[in-house]
Amino acid sequence: MLEFVDRPDCPPPAAQEVLVDVRAIGVNRADVAFRSGHYLVQPSPPCGLGIEGAGVVRAVGAGVTRFTAGQRVCILPGFLQGGAYATYATAGLFPAASLIETPGGLDDRQAAALWVSALTAWGALVELARLAPGDFALISAASSSVGLAAIEVARAVGAIPIATTRNPAKVAELLAAGATEVVVGDHSAVAGPISDITGPAGLRIAFDPIAGRFAEALVPCMGEEGIIFIYGGLSDEPTRFDRRAMIAKGISLTGYMLGQVLRRPERLERGRGFVLDHLEKGTLTPRIDRSFPLASAAEAHRYMESNAQLGKIVLTV
Amino acid sequence: MLEFVDRPDCPPPAAQEVLVDVRAIGVNRADVAFRSGHYLVQPSPPCGLGIEGAGVVRAVGAGVTRFTAGQRVCILPGFLQGGAYATYATAGLFPAASLIETPGGLDDRQAAALWVSALTAWGALVELARLAPGDFALISAASSSVGLAAIEVARAVGAIPIATTRNPAKVAELLAAGATEVVVGDHSAVAGPISDITGPAGLRIAFDPIAGRFAEALVPCMGEEGIIFIYGGLSDEPTRFDRRAMIAKGISLTGYMLGQVLRRPERLERGRGFVLDHLEKGTLTPRIDRSFPLASAAEAHRYMESNAQLGKIVLTV
Repeated sequence: MLEFVDRPDCPPPAAQEVLVDVRAIGVNRADVAFRSGHYLVQPSPPCGLGIEGAGVVRAVGAGVTRFTAGQRVCILPGFLQGGAYATYATAGLFPAASLIETPGGLDDRQAAALWVSALTAWGALVELARLAPGDFALISAASSSVGLAAIEVARAVGAIPIATTRNPAKVAELLAAGATEVVVGDHSAVAGPISDITGPAGLRIAFDPIAGRFAEALVPCMGEEGIIFIYGGLSDEPTRFDRRAMIAKGISLTGYMLGQVLRRPERLERGRGFVLDHLEKGTLTPRIDRSFPLASAAEAHRYMESNAQLGKIVLTV
Repeated sequence: MLEFVDRPDCPPPAAQEVLVDVRAIGVNRADVAFRSGHYLVQPSPPCGLGIEGAGVVRAVGAGVTRFTAGQRVCILPGFLQGGAYATYATAGLFPAASLIETPGGLDDRQAAALWVSALTAWGALVELARLAPGDFALISAASSSVGLAAIEVARAVGAIPIATTRNPAKVAELLAAGATEVVVGDHSAVAGPISDITGPAGLRIAFDPIAGRFAEALVPCMGEEGIIFIYGGLSDEPTRFDRRAMIAKGISLTGYMLGQVLRRPERLERGRGFVLDHLEKGTLTPRIDRSFPLASAAEAHRYMESNAQLGKIVLTV
């Protein structure tokens, strides 16, 4: 259930907290999963929703030196607080550590659409897998905001992004977004075309939010010591570890989530540097598919569930 | 089927080949699996058997400069040649690249019992996982030669080896072999005791040749970004990837085999240095459980299948 509640005005920020007037909110697949009880943690209503936003600092608590009133900030509070720092709001209190100064040149909607997808892709492809020039990187469900960011991150390090989608209508846009190749199909159809593209080198990584039979179908496409990152469960099917094939090539099936970046300050700092660097170079760009007013958040969720989007869905306040 | 065949005398070694009089052979679980058709590659009889041995160089082929007749060598030809370079023989031709000078102080039986187990453990624990001081390392089926080597490798880098066994009679010997703790039980019993030992840190790695329900039981014991190495399939059961738990902690289920070390010369060189260094320090020791004459190889295989051993089973010529 998604419902709007009038709350009393926010109390003043406590130590290390910042009160932010929220201007735009990035809608993430995790929000939909959390709302519907399919996320890693269960909601205990009433609770807030939203892990990404942008706005303007109204007030700062004791000990906060990096931010001042009037400053534009991005909000990246992570998820495991179970909605305590929700961004689906007109204003909210956030830990200073969860804020990043809004990069110059981005409007609020773009600022709310940048970090979750870019850091999610960076954490797996660069920080953990150390993707290198010439590596083949499979990006499945590639028209999501994270998928599009992963295409750009792969390109940024000189790797070769291969996108998959079930929807033939998205091929041209995925190529335009930077995919070197686009493979259309479900679990039964993708393995052959992927292996035709990579040849014997195989995939260095697959970056997959689908899991189930789709992830299983990728195993024969992997190269030596390839990594299949599973960062979602769109398929809702179990995923079997194909022991013989995985041992023969030293393949990993690796769970992954953005929290692995957000929970480690030194890692978040490296990711922030990468994103800001490539934002400036133009190799990373927030891609907004469609905006809704905050009051239409339910409609925005239904739109995400339709899988019609290509890029980020944003709410504006 | 295991059968002895008289072959015509070996031809002289070709370029980059060495003719070795085999004196001792290390029996590995992979030999048993290959013989019975359960290995990653299928035997196509008649074919040889054996991936580890020690002996004396009889002759060298053109271009071989590292070895000379009369020199004692260890033989480590790997497996994927499907028995072409089998060590279950009185003499054989081997690629010079698969030979290592026998370390001083080791007799032939010890020399035949050292490398497969030590390098298998080193490759996963040190080279791939970069196990660090204070890390908890679970070593299951710990009384195998690889398990015992893994206990020593974990200790050598300052990590804390936790051994598991189904056989209570092996506890004292596993503690004597260097395990900090020994947990007795099957998949239904080990998770609680392991988590009691590690506390919230959890396991940095698990090094598991069992797979199936045993590997699944380890998932809740893993720490953040822990790695479950699967290097065998003793259980013969399927292994499910527990998506939610693996994503929440960024856990990997990683196939692994010694070939990942043997196929990469620079990696093999690092592993060789580690093993020689710790052999000299006394922190790594080949552990022989029992020797059989080569003619009793079938009996040696049956003994391995009984799981009564603690350490290496060796054949002598």
